[in-house]
Amino acid sequence: MSLLIAGTIAFDSLETPHGNADRVIGGSCQYSSYAASYFTDDIRMVSIIGNDFPQEELNDLTSKGASLDGVKVVEEGKSFFWAGKYLDNMNERVTITTDLNVLADFDPVLPDHYRESEYILLGNLTPDIQISVVNQLEKKPKLVVLDTMNFWIDSAHDKLLEAIKLCDVLTINDEEARMLSGEHSLVKAAGKIFNLGLKYLIIKKGEHGCLLFDKNNVFFAPALPLAEVKDPTGAGDCFAGGLMGYIAKTGDASFENLKRALIYGSAAASFVVEEFSNHKIKSLSQSEFDERVEEFVKLSQFSL
Amino acid sequence: MSLLIAGTIAFDSLETPHGNADRVIGGSCQYSSYAASYFTDDIRMVSIIGNDFPQEELNDLTSKGASLDGVKVVEEGKSFFWAGKYLDNMNERVTITTDLNVLADFDPVLPDHYRESEYILLGNLTPDIQISVVNQLEKKPKLVVLDTMNFWIDSAHDKLLEAIKLCDVLTINDEEARMLSGEHSLVKAAGKIFNLGLKYLIIKKGEHGCLLFDKNNVFFAPALPLAEVKDPTGAGDCFAGGLMGYIAKTGDASFENLKRALIYGSAAASFVVEEFSNHKIKSLSQSEFDERVEEFVKLSQFSL
Repeated sequence: MSLLIAGTIAFDSLETPHGNADRVIGGSCQYSSYAASYFTDDIRMVSIIGNDFPQEELNDLTSKGASLDGVKVVEEGKSFFWAGKYLDNMNERVTITTDLNVLADFDPVLPDHYRESEYILLGNLTPDIQISVVNQLEKKPKLVVLDTMNFWIDSAHDKLLEAIKLCDVLTINDEEARMLSGEHSLVKAAGKIFNLGLKYLIIKKGEHGCLLFDKNNVFFAPALPLAEVKDPTGAGDCFAGGLMGYIAKTGDASFENLKRALIYGSAAASFVVEEFSNHKIKSLSQSEFDERVEEFVKLSQFSL
Repeated sequence: MSLLIAGTIAFDSLETPHGNADRVIGGSCQYSSYAASYFTDDIRMVSIIGNDFPQEELNDLTSKGASLDGVKVVEEGKSFFWAGKYLDNMNERVTITTDLNVLADFDPVLPDHYRESEYILLGNLTPDIQISVVNQLEKKPKLVVLDTMNFWIDSAHDKLLEAIKLCDVLTINDEEARMLSGEHSLVKAAGKIFNLGLKYLIIKKGEHGCLLFDKNNVFFAPALPLAEVKDPTGAGDCFAGGLMGYIAKTGDASFENLKRALIYGSAAASFVVEEFSNHKIKSLSQSEFDERVEEFVKLSQFSL
């Protein structure tokens, strides 16, 4: 089934304890689309790029089943650029440069055939843009997932709450959940955030896995212990993309199916961090992906 | 089957963000024994106390099936005392006072009927004492588990390695695993520590669960997300006690059974942190314990 993914397509420059990467491909829409492509070939990207984005990268996305009809190309502009540095433990990062470039004036207009998309993933963007995308839909989607970050919780708090009200699922990391709720305990934080009007809440804990909440249940999906994390960039985006790809493929947004979707999303995230940029997540075979999912089963399943 | 548990019996004074507790019952041997008592009534405690330890508390332990024959009472001495403070996130603690008291001269002599114990849990103590306990065993035990802490990794490194060589399983937390191995990645750390001569390695990550490694496999047991952690003291001891209690009960030290044992240990740990001292872990009904284990199943089990 159809999956609309809104977010950024960008260049990233990264410094990590394992090396540096200069102006490599990044952006939430790009990462999520690759992760979703292992599940569905009806991906509708909503983003914006400048005249500097390599055609080859766009071709790679379309070859995976992603439509670029909703990706605006600004001929006289430059693509969004982010530079950051990961600290020793790889769980913390600092931003060195943010050049919004064409993203500064991004006001997406959905192509007509996007407006009846069934599954919607609103990647990390200003809440205004996320709201605008939802408002252009002509048919109530089956599930809307919203990803956000600390920057918007701080700088666009009320708009973010408005965006959350339009969504079914929020994905947020543990520190952001604490920030948004004012509660240290993730269980208490989840209770408060849940009441903003959500059907499901997903709290991501990076290398420590993630939690899925609905009104009465909680499920935990582990992260795969990896010998080496080279570049954490895109982990959250690939997680969300894999998760929504799986839901779009199965057409089932029940709690039981979201549990599975968390595992598939976690598998996607486990790949992207093993190499810089999108090198690994864009080039997996289906059997490599399936074997990785099997590792999650072995890692976490037991019988009493 | 018989389970020997060596460790401390102590008074603790605690400061936490949820309040303070003054001279409450603590100690690794005491915590582990309570946790193990939900699985076996043949628990053989090895520890030392002074003349100040309440008889009522000792009676509570014997009523749960714990033998005190290996608990030396020093009539002219005082029990081990530890005072500490937990910082805001409850994952870090600082020691305020350590009064070794009778523990300073602890040189355990195992009662004869302890010397053929089948399962051995060496709680956090000096490696010298842990080695002495193993050396007094007259029959090769079925499984020896050793717990340790950063203090011994620092101050008694070579003795600790000697103790580890005598054991089948090491339980250690994530920061200690990094310290002992010099590796940040827990997978790499596990590889190095495993080669010290272990059959299994358990790396504890506190609220983030724990990992079980053997030569070829890895299993992850989550921690239960709790609305409130009042006092983390004893969590690791109850984890080890529940784990070894279950193994002693089932008489099965296979990887598959250790997976189950991790879940039972995690359930025991989830109780102790909900109240100060041993208040909760000593007074559960079997059905409360079983229901908690069921929560772990719901939390982590899925079908693809």
